Amino acid sequence: MRSALVLQTDFGMADGAVSAMYGVALGVCPDLRICDLTHEIPPYDIWEASYRLIQTISYWPKDTVFVSVVDPGVGSSRRSVCVRTSGGHYVITPDNGTLTHVKRMLGIEGARIIDESVNRLAGSTQSYTFYGRDVYVYTGARLAAGIIDFEGVGPAFDPAEVVELPIVEPTFDGERVQGTIDVLDVRFGSLWTNISRERFDQLGVGYGQRVEVTIEADTRTVYRNFLTYARSFSEVFVGEPLVYANSLDCMAVAINQGSFAKAYGIGTGTSWKITLRKAPRLVYE
Amino acid sequence: MRSALVLQTDFGMADGAVSAMYGVALGVCPDLRICDLTHEIPPYDIWEASYRLIQTISYWPKDTVFVSVVDPGVGSSRRSVCVRTSGGHYVITPDNGTLTHVKRMLGIEGARIIDESVNRLAGSTQSYTFYGRDVYVYTGARLAAGIIDFEGVGPAFDPAEVVELPIVEPTFDGERVQGTIDVLDVRFGSLWTNISRERFDQLGVGYGQRVEVTIEADTRTVYRNFLTYARSFSEVFVGEPLVYANSLDCMAVAINQGSFAKAYGIGTGTSWKITLRKAPRLVYE
Amino acid sequence: MRSALVLQTDFGMADGAVSAMYGVALGVCPDLRICDLTHEIPPYDIWEASYRLIQTISYWPKDTVFVSVVDPGVGSSRRSVCVRTSGGHYVITPDNGTLTHVKRMLGIEGARIIDESVNRLAGSTQSYTFYGRDVYVYTGARLAAGIIDFEGVGPAFDPAEVVELPIVEPTFDGERVQGTIDVLDVRFGSLWTNISRERFDQLGVGYGQRVEVTIEADTRTVYRNFLTYARSFSEVFVGEPLVYANSLDCMAVAINQGSFAKAYGIGTGTSWKITLRKAPRLVYE
Repeated sequence: MRSALVLQTDFGMADGAVSAMYGVALGVCPDLRICDLTHEIPPYDIWEASYRLIQTISYWPKDTVFVSVVDPGVGSSRRSVCVRTSGGHYVITPDNGTLTHVKRMLGIEGARIIDESVNRLAGSTQSYTFYGRDVYVYTGARLAAGIIDFEGVGPAFDPAEVVELPIVEPTFDGERVQGTIDVLDVRFGSLWTNISRERFDQLGVGYGQRVEVTIEADTRTVYRNFLTYARSFSEVFVGEPLVYANSLDCMAVAINQGSFAKAYGIGTGTSWKITLRKAPRLVYE
Repeated sequence: MRSALVLQTDFGMADGAVSAMYGVALGVCPDLRICDLTHEIPPYDIWEASYRLIQTISYWPKDTVFVSVVDPGVGSSRRSVCVRTSGGHYVITPDNGTLTHVKRMLGIEGARIIDESVNRLAGSTQSYTFYGRDVYVYTGARLAAGIIDFEGVGPAFDPAEVVELPIVEPTFDGERVQGTIDVLDVRFGSLWTNISRERFDQLGVGYGQRVEVTIEADTRTVYRNFLTYARSFSEVFVGEPLVYANSLDCMAVAINQGSFAKAYGIGTGTSWKITLRKAPRLVYE
Repeated sequence: MRSALVLQTDFGMADGAVSAMYGVALGVCPDLRICDLTHEIPPYDIWEASYRLIQTISYWPKDTVFVSVVDPGVGSSRRSVCVRTSGGHYVITPDNGTLTHVKRMLGIEGARIIDESVNRLAGSTQSYTFYGRDVYVYTGARLAAGIIDFEGVGPAFDPAEVVELPIVEPTFDGERVQGTIDVLDVRFGSLWTNISRERFDQLGVGYGQRVEVTIEADTRTVYRNFLTYARSFSEVFVGEPLVYANSLDCMAVAINQGSFAKAYGIGTGTSWKITLRKAPRLVYE
């Protein structure tokens, strides 16, 4: 095996932490391909780390090795693991919930605990970035370079044990689909929900038709309006809100060339509920 | 042909969209060289996308393939194109004005419409980032890897048809050069104008001599002062403003180790006029 | 020699300046490995450039060539140099203090002035980014690619002459260690001091024991409290402050999953003093 190594962290790019990871990986194998997923995961945000992996992994060739380091429990007893997905990608990460979406949406066919007696850079010191640099990227580089195989990572464990964050499933009462706002598209201000397009289709809303969108945060109604269900942004006016299916085939809400999230102060997580139903026919009398 | 692939978008690096583009390109050709121009183009800002291309392209080797995705009209009827510049570089982009400066300043010697029946990743879904990932970078990777040649991109069309944003040319009345503020150097706060050094030289101002700089936004005079025309920042005091020729050989205005743009609230575009003339001799009586 | 080229600047990634550097380097050698340290050094901040180098260099393989361009004196008489560290890494930079920590902590075994009559891209124009692109990265690419060796950079000079920024050494009075706050971890808000772990150990504080931390800015006491000396963040509560040894084996102060710097408005530099002593025994009467 010889494949690419793809890095994700919450370290940011302002200091030398990510560059030190590159240096360690090239020390393992001078001609390894190394790329970035993102280093701008909000500090300690395991949920977003999990989400960004699922957004990206399937576009990469089989055997690609992902290293994700968002590790608020660094130094605690959380395990350091490597999993192989059903699609044949590898992810190396602290087992703290980072694999939630990978486990549910891609499937995990094998899981191993990193044996640090073998897979660890010599002479390293403790720091928040320590494990990322001296254990995770070091092991990832050895795996991507073919110096070790999956077995060489360390002892196997049951993939069912991989830690998952709590997930609230969308519900459908025959008229309404209710889900949660999983994540914001930070740059364009769109909301990404956990409602699949398949589930949404049960509402019987066609392209160009209207959807009633209600957003609630705990007991407070934050937004309610009738929006067009559009194939793409260009089907609505600049400044007009719309409902569409995002690149994960889940339903999303946006303002064409504006920021829905900023406009209405939208947040994410299981307390942010979104309800979609077919808009009523408007009759003026 | 085997050359580098260089990516520019307004996607930002906070989510997985750019990384998915890398994955698609490496799926096309596992040992392709992929680099970034920038992913921080302000959302939907076609003008700045056009400007950043011209700032960068000529420093890259011949045959380099640039993919630029700033695409507010995604899903509309704008064409997806690939052009070959007179200098032998390729640019793949929605034809929405992104090629304005390339067409005017470098010249376009060939233009082709991407044939999506051939040049498109299989099994892709719709999203804002869809074309960037599944059409543009996929086609760019195939071109850079030599899997297709320029003809293989799709049918040719007349380069004269390539879409241009409106540009206001600088004027010279014998004493004054007037132009517009094209772009800000975001990090250092300098103003970059559309006045070439050649045009400026007609004023007969030598290094170390003074220039009268007037900046107007619509009918409002925002700034007027006498500035030194300097070869480099170090020729003026820290905190002193100066006029200089930038890396595009156009005239620029800055404050040494300060931000001119922030200091005076300067914006960009055709409503921001800047006038340069030789400073009058100051006679104290 | 054939090694990686690693770039650090204060240019940011929002425009095309860094990408132009990549283009120039690939023009020198099409299959050169090029990586980034960071491009987010605060504009003109030589101290931070020096610090980020020392934070990173030793994780990279021997012979790696670093190019650092933070150059407020561009166009002045500051020298353009290349040094070889005692560990066998190269750094190319304006000699303006960027090598302060490298000289003190790694040691410099050879120093050369860049001979611009040889090592300079043809046909270049003046700009703030000029030297970075047309001299420093061009020379760095030639060195990393093995086109020139260290002698080929230009004439040697005495490493003792390499410019250093003033540094205040920590002091120890038998009970208290006093040092300065060198740098902030921008993303996680930790303070990194210039007090080595070795020096701190003289206080006789073991893991889990308490340290009295006092922070003063000029004559003002900004913070005083008793903190746990912890091996890692997970040994204290979320939200609890701690003292720990960072990845440079210097003492640092943080809040677990919070930002110490933001919480108390901490700055950096020689006017920011930090004093550590063994905490007194607390006796409630």
